[in-house]
Amino acid sequence: MQLIEHLNWRYATKKMNGNTISENQLNNILDAIQLAPSSSGIQPYSVFVISDKEILKKIQPIAMGQGQIVDCSHLLVFASWDKYTLEKIENMFDYTLSERNLPSNTMDDYKKNLWGMFSQKTDDWHAHHSAKQTYIALGIAMVAAAEQKIDTTPMEGFDPKALDELLNLKEKGLKSTALLPLGYRDAENDWLSGMKKVRRPKNELFIK
Amino acid sequence: MQLIEHLNWRYATKKMNGNTISENQLNNILDAIQLAPSSSGIQPYSVFVISDKEILKKIQPIAMGQGQIVDCSHLLVFASWDKYTLEKIENMFDYTLSERNLPSNTMDDYKKNLWGMFSQKTDDWHAHHSAKQTYIALGIAMVAAAEQKIDTTPMEGFDPKALDELLNLKEKGLKSTALLPLGYRDAENDWLSGMKKVRRPKNELFIK
Repeated sequence: MQLIEHLNWRYATKKMNGNTISENQLNNILDAIQLAPSSSGIQPYSVFVISDKEILKKIQPIAMGQGQIVDCSHLLVFASWDKYTLEKIENMFDYTLSERNLPSNTMDDYKKNLWGMFSQKTDDWHAHHSAKQTYIALGIAMVAAAEQKIDTTPMEGFDPKALDELLNLKEKGLKSTALLPLGYRDAENDWLSGMKKVRRPKNELFIK
Repeated sequence: MQLIEHLNWRYATKKMNGNTISENQLNNILDAIQLAPSSSGIQPYSVFVISDKEILKKIQPIAMGQGQIVDCSHLLVFASWDKYTLEKIENMFDYTLSERNLPSNTMDDYKKNLWGMFSQKTDDWHAHHSAKQTYIALGIAMVAAAEQKIDTTPMEGFDPKALDELLNLKEKGLKSTALLPLGYRDAENDWLSGMKKVRRPKNELFIK
């Protein structure tokens, strides 16, 4: 399986060499993110694509000084909706139905049930729910990069409040959820490069 | 890109035809799940692999009666840790270091910082954090299936408390997070089959 090869090839790169990826390669990764599945197809997130070195230098101290933030080609900032609203959900359903040439009331019952459920949940639940969907896209972005032999480093080690402030996320109704530098491994200077990939044994991970 | 083709081929199958997948195909999907990235490599989840029709019939009413639960070949139940503990984290680090033939104290500082952070968080935060990691594996499982032209239906529409009780998850320190039936589309009887795949436009999803 191609996927297994890609997953074995990738690792959370600790040192990148500063080389850049092409526009075409970047677009393939964005295409894959756009196609990622999400709950009810709502895609409750936005992804910032940052290559401006001045902005990356500002993000680095917010992300525990990690070098990949400035040594990457592009930094993806996955930012999930701070909460679902009826308006946002209706917009997505209207758009989907119009793209499918279906009457706009086709999914009214589904929409009503969905909002009936969401509207009873706390803001905290909303933020976690949208973040979970974002992690599907995050995982798929890593596979899309690996298929093109582009390295990535998924990162949760950053100060989300400070990053939200830097990128004005609050006013956009977003919360920073995960970072993903895209670039190329500096294998010689990366302590993790060449280390055995370790995963929990199958008899522990799977219950049949 | 292969991945883009797989993502375009797949959809959240609403009607499956009852055909079964081979052991080899199933194992490829489990291999991919095992290789999925997770925060600090901890893989804070287990995945139940269920093909016993009697158990599936018991799960169906817990999952809003959805037909794919019984018409699938295998049902994957993604169950994430209810919380992180120092013991679980130490076990994973000990295992990783021993697999890499490194001294057992190699990552003591990292481990200390990690537990320093986790130990200050609420149980609720722990459950959401492990669930997010689980969603990376969920997404990768869908790609692994699609590469083999196996259909899947990611599901959040079930009663997690009832499912946790049925599978005795609480005593295992797990919470059911998502369901993923694996099988084959019954295209003729699936209203969603053949519908245009709709995704949010790139200029809305991505911010450059």
